[in-house]
Amino acid sequence: MTNILIRYGETGLKGEPVRYKFEKLLVENMMLAHKNAGVSCLFDRQRGRIFASTDSPDRTMEILSKTFGVVSFSPVEECPAEPEEIARLAVSLASTRLKQGMSFAVRARRTGEHAYSSMQLAALVGERILEATRGLGITVDLNKPDFEIFIEVRNNRAFVFTENIPGPGGLPLRSQGRVLAIIEDRKSLLAAWLMMRRGCTTILVNQSELTPKEIELLKPWNPWWNGFIESTDPLELLRLKNCAGISLGWTLEEFESREKLLPGVPVFYPLIGMTKEEIEGRMASLFG
Amino acid sequence: MTNILIRYGETGLKGEPVRYKFEKLLVENMMLAHKNAGVSCLFDRQRGRIFASTDSPDRTMEILSKTFGVVSFSPVEECPAEPEEIARLAVSLASTRLKQGMSFAVRARRTGEHAYSSMQLAALVGERILEATRGLGITVDLNKPDFEIFIEVRNNRAFVFTENIPGPGGLPLRSQGRVLAIIEDRKSLLAAWLMMRRGCTTILVNQSELTPKEIELLKPWNPWWNGFIESTDPLELLRLKNCAGISLGWTLEEFESREKLLPGVPVFYPLIGMTKEEIEGRMASLFG
Repeated sequence: MTNILIRYGETGLKGEPVRYKFEKLLVENMMLAHKNAGVSCLFDRQRGRIFASTDSPDRTMEILSKTFGVVSFSPVEECPAEPEEIARLAVSLASTRLKQGMSFAVRARRTGEHAYSSMQLAALVGERILEATRGLGITVDLNKPDFEIFIEVRNNRAFVFTENIPGPGGLPLRSQGRVLAIIEDRKSLLAAWLMMRRGCTTILVNQSELTPKEIELLKPWNPWWNGFIESTDPLELLRLKNCAGISLGWTLEEFESREKLLPGVPVFYPLIGMTKEEIEGRMASLFG
Repeated sequence: MTNILIRYGETGLKGEPVRYKFEKLLVENMMLAHKNAGVSCLFDRQRGRIFASTDSPDRTMEILSKTFGVVSFSPVEECPAEPEEIARLAVSLASTRLKQGMSFAVRARRTGEHAYSSMQLAALVGERILEATRGLGITVDLNKPDFEIFIEVRNNRAFVFTENIPGPGGLPLRSQGRVLAIIEDRKSLLAAWLMMRRGCTTILVNQSELTPKEIELLKPWNPWWNGFIESTDPLELLRLKNCAGISLGWTLEEFESREKLLPGVPVFYPLIGMTKEEIEGRMASLFG
């Protein structure tokens, strides 16, 4: 079993009931994505962190990197919060990665009561790694190390890890209202993605020449995926599906040449403030 | 005099007339910003690049970093496009920066007809730098160098530089339509900034508790600044000023709690697709 520490939460998310709802939706979404993929994974919620235990770490990490609300995650090794035990674990992790002449840094943080400070812990662990790699010309470099070892002590448990993999961030799917995403081109897929990342349940209406396969580029991001609708009357659909608004992939230039207002319906243009470079960079990294 | 090479242009900007208009507006905006600041600077347009010659490089760079449409810029040294001359210039630039044990990389690019390739040029310059710094333990590292030397050869001129400073990107102010930016809080300042970065002439209407000083955080970004309007009727103002639409700083959460539609008026919410972290990070870096 590999344990993965999952970080989530927008800064503004403060109240206990909102946090509870948010966590619940996030775990539900991750569970459903694992179920769809046929991967078994257990989730454990603990004060501001979620831990996943999985037999298929690569597939779990693939899912986490496409789960809205996940800010970052790290495969971790766990041990009791005892400095020499932590150091032993860190040495075993570091020694498989540190090669001749490389530099490293230890980054430690702590919550709870302990007989040591974060800095003392980092210093001890750094020393133990230097001792264990003597003769290899390994050095400590806190500014620009080749390799970082992270330690997170939470009360009587300690987690040691070497990677901090970014997730997409945002809010869990279904934590906000419903939006009708009109698909007119590839850019509209990005607009829909941005609304999904805000937590919106997004109903896709195809009015494009895109192939089903192209529209399905959004599928890995939505465990609740149930395809898209072919329609010529988005307004009726809006009422029928009880949506709060419409999203369009228009940029400002397009807006100026194509404007046609839908009276009384909120229209979102999530790309309106983005530069061409930002739009193209995002599309390339998301949809290839 | 310091020469600064200015890079601009969105990828989508192709046709000659659009490019001409774009460049003209960009240079006008930079000239006005320099005039406002009491700094003298000459601009020279040359196929896809603009060169600024300034006596106050720090102040010019401060202005460029706040000029919409500028993608990046570099203070450059110039010499004829002759390999040994380029190498001499690169050695003199490198030798002031390279300290004991540091690594470097030479990045060369070329447009025009030359007897050498970019790779040959980079190899020669690298060799000359190693010769000149012999005994200091300087090494070449193309992946993660401490220091980079850039060479750009354009026909019979060569430019050597060591910095590539990012500008805000986007489109030059006044290259797109007019927008009424309703200021309700600090977030609305970011929304207005994003519309300005799209090239919109943005008229600010204050409906907030912000002090004039806070609203003036946008001033350094707009050489055409003429303050803001206090008004309670944005719709009338919209007609009067012939604006294409309104921009609001609402996020999706706010939208859901505050929705009130302005009938028949396009409303932009440039923050609608952004995460809280993105909004807060942007505001902190722009407005402190």
